Amino acid sequence: MRTDTDPGFAEIAERIHSNVGRQGFMNLVGAELSELARGECTIAVERRPDLLQQHGFFHGGVTAFLVDNATTIAAATSRGQPALTAEYKLNLLSPAVGEKLICRARVIKPGRQVSVVAADVFCVTDGVEKHTATALASIAMLNEEVGATTKSPAA
Amino acid sequence: MRTDTDPGFAEIAERIHSNVGRQGFMNLVGAELSELARGECTIAVERRPDLLQQHGFFHGGVTAFLVDNATTIAAATSRGQPALTAEYKLNLLSPAVGEKLICRARVIKPGRQVSVVAADVFCVTDGVEKHTATALASIAMLNEEVGATTKSPAA
Amino acid sequence: MRTDTDPGFAEIAERIHSNVGRQGFMNLVGAELSELARGECTIAVERRPDLLQQHGFFHGGVTAFLVDNATTIAAATSRGQPALTAEYKLNLLSPAVGEKLICRARVIKPGRQVSVVAADVFCVTDGVEKHTATALASIAMLNEEVGATTKSPAA
Amino acid sequence: MRTDTDPGFAEIAERIHSNVGRQGFMNLVGAELSELARGECTIAVERRPDLLQQHGFFHGGVTAFLVDNATTIAAATSRGQPALTAEYKLNLLSPAVGEKLICRARVIKPGRQVSVVAADVFCVTDGVEKHTATALASIAMLNEEVGATTKSPAA
Repeated sequence: MRTDTDPGFAEIAERIHSNVGRQGFMNLVGAELSELARGECTIAVERRPDLLQQHGFFHGGVTAFLVDNATTIAAATSRGQPALTAEYKLNLLSPAVGEKLICRARVIKPGRQVSVVAADVFCVTDGVEKHTATALASIAMLNEEVGATTKSPAA
Repeated sequence: MRTDTDPGFAEIAERIHSNVGRQGFMNLVGAELSELARGECTIAVERRPDLLQQHGFFHGGVTAFLVDNATTIAAATSRGQPALTAEYKLNLLSPAVGEKLICRARVIKPGRQVSVVAADVFCVTDGVEKHTATALASIAMLNEEVGATTKSPAA
Repeated sequence: MRTDTDPGFAEIAERIHSNVGRQGFMNLVGAELSELARGECTIAVERRPDLLQQHGFFHGGVTAFLVDNATTIAAATSRGQPALTAEYKLNLLSPAVGEKLICRARVIKPGRQVSVVAADVFCVTDGVEKHTATALASIAMLNEEVGATTKSPAA
Repeated sequence: MRTDTDPGFAEIAERIHSNVGRQGFMNLVGAELSELARGECTIAVERRPDLLQQHGFFHGGVTAFLVDNATTIAAATSRGQPALTAEYKLNLLSPAVGEKLICRARVIKPGRQVSVVAADVFCVTDGVEKHTATALASIAMLNEEVGATTKSPAA
């Protein structure tokens, strides 16, 4: 988390972890915010029967949840301001098999109003990752006052 | 469900309901397949604390799950063949407040290889619907053999 | 153009027409801004050999150009502020045959920072319209000062 | 073009160049198919006044045209079969300034029915590239018979 070399980031990371901890749906899915850095966020979730679809693969909705959360959080790390998913596009590349699903998001273009964030989702079988989905998101960057009162920021 | 005037559809609807009933994630979220017709599908979910984010709105991941499932199912109703989400784009229009979230999907362009499906998500407060998200999806239409063995169809 | 009932709109429309008239690419393609109203924009172009691809259909790039321009202009009509395409998704539904291509864009959700705009493209053969493409766009709404100096607004 | 080590590719490349040469719109824009390899395509265009918008930047429609063409062609190189743009999403990251626009497309996931292709667009000023747009596309892969008669393939 680079908290020693980037003191301002420690406070941002703490706030993000606090916010994510209060997301009921994050807890229901059982996903974990496993990595956080300036412009980057990784969220992972272990396989459970209630995360699957009828053929035993991770449900596409789980993949989408990881993308939604990881892209917004990655954008929020840039300057610590509240961020809000405006939109994203998600391509499912292959069935999400295996024991674990990992979503890695990284800011492509930080912006004052909109940040563009890419995400890739991998499924893990016996420690081997397979690329299962790719996404491209636009995240609305809010100013503090707006974020605190009327919107739905990630951080 | 028009089963009296469209006999072939009764069988398709039965298979879809059976498949959806075996989706662990659908059950975890507690969503309900409330309407099904040729080219159309509606899925709804009642508010629960574990479907929310830190500000008390429905989590964007719940909205995405409804879109993912409803668009694929709508495509599968066209001819009853297995269908698989290829990709979608989702725009979040306003915070998903209220006691209920409803996703209505409709096929815009049925296709032999790819069907294009639109979806709109509404949140309901005191019986009044508000437009909270809109989406556009491409659904891969599989032949029966492929669907049965190697892919992840909705129906 | 409702200029009699919406006086503020006359000025906005005039500025948009002036800006579009200075778009070299609009002139190269030969497209025409045929309708303009609050939250709505229609752009059309007649068939010419140099707008086609190798099979004699309108090139997908022409369809994309109409979508890009019409969605941004539709957003700019809302309050007359400069607008800038942030992103869009375009689904091509059928070959763009016929003698004319028409793109109709309408604002779904006006926003202070981002407006969401839908567009549909129709190709016309013997006066009959066929739906050839559908799109969903996010348009960044700029304040006047930013728009005047550093960005690329439509209006 | 690796034609010495990949003999089958020489024929594919020749067919693609022939098809692209018959695109009226490619010629109108004055774009050039500058690189072609298995799963990759680069198209570039030099600045001209009639490719610009009212502020002197390359028009977003030019960027979209490059993305549309380069992604479809990249998909067509995989096995030489006809390919057809199904959909794409395009994020504009910064104003397209400079003397040249270059679009590089690469297949992320080749498919029997749908190939997923990413593209990045760069604008060049004094030889220095700047990232101006990023895109994610789904390309429908046609069989030869269908492609020859009823659709709009790139190759």
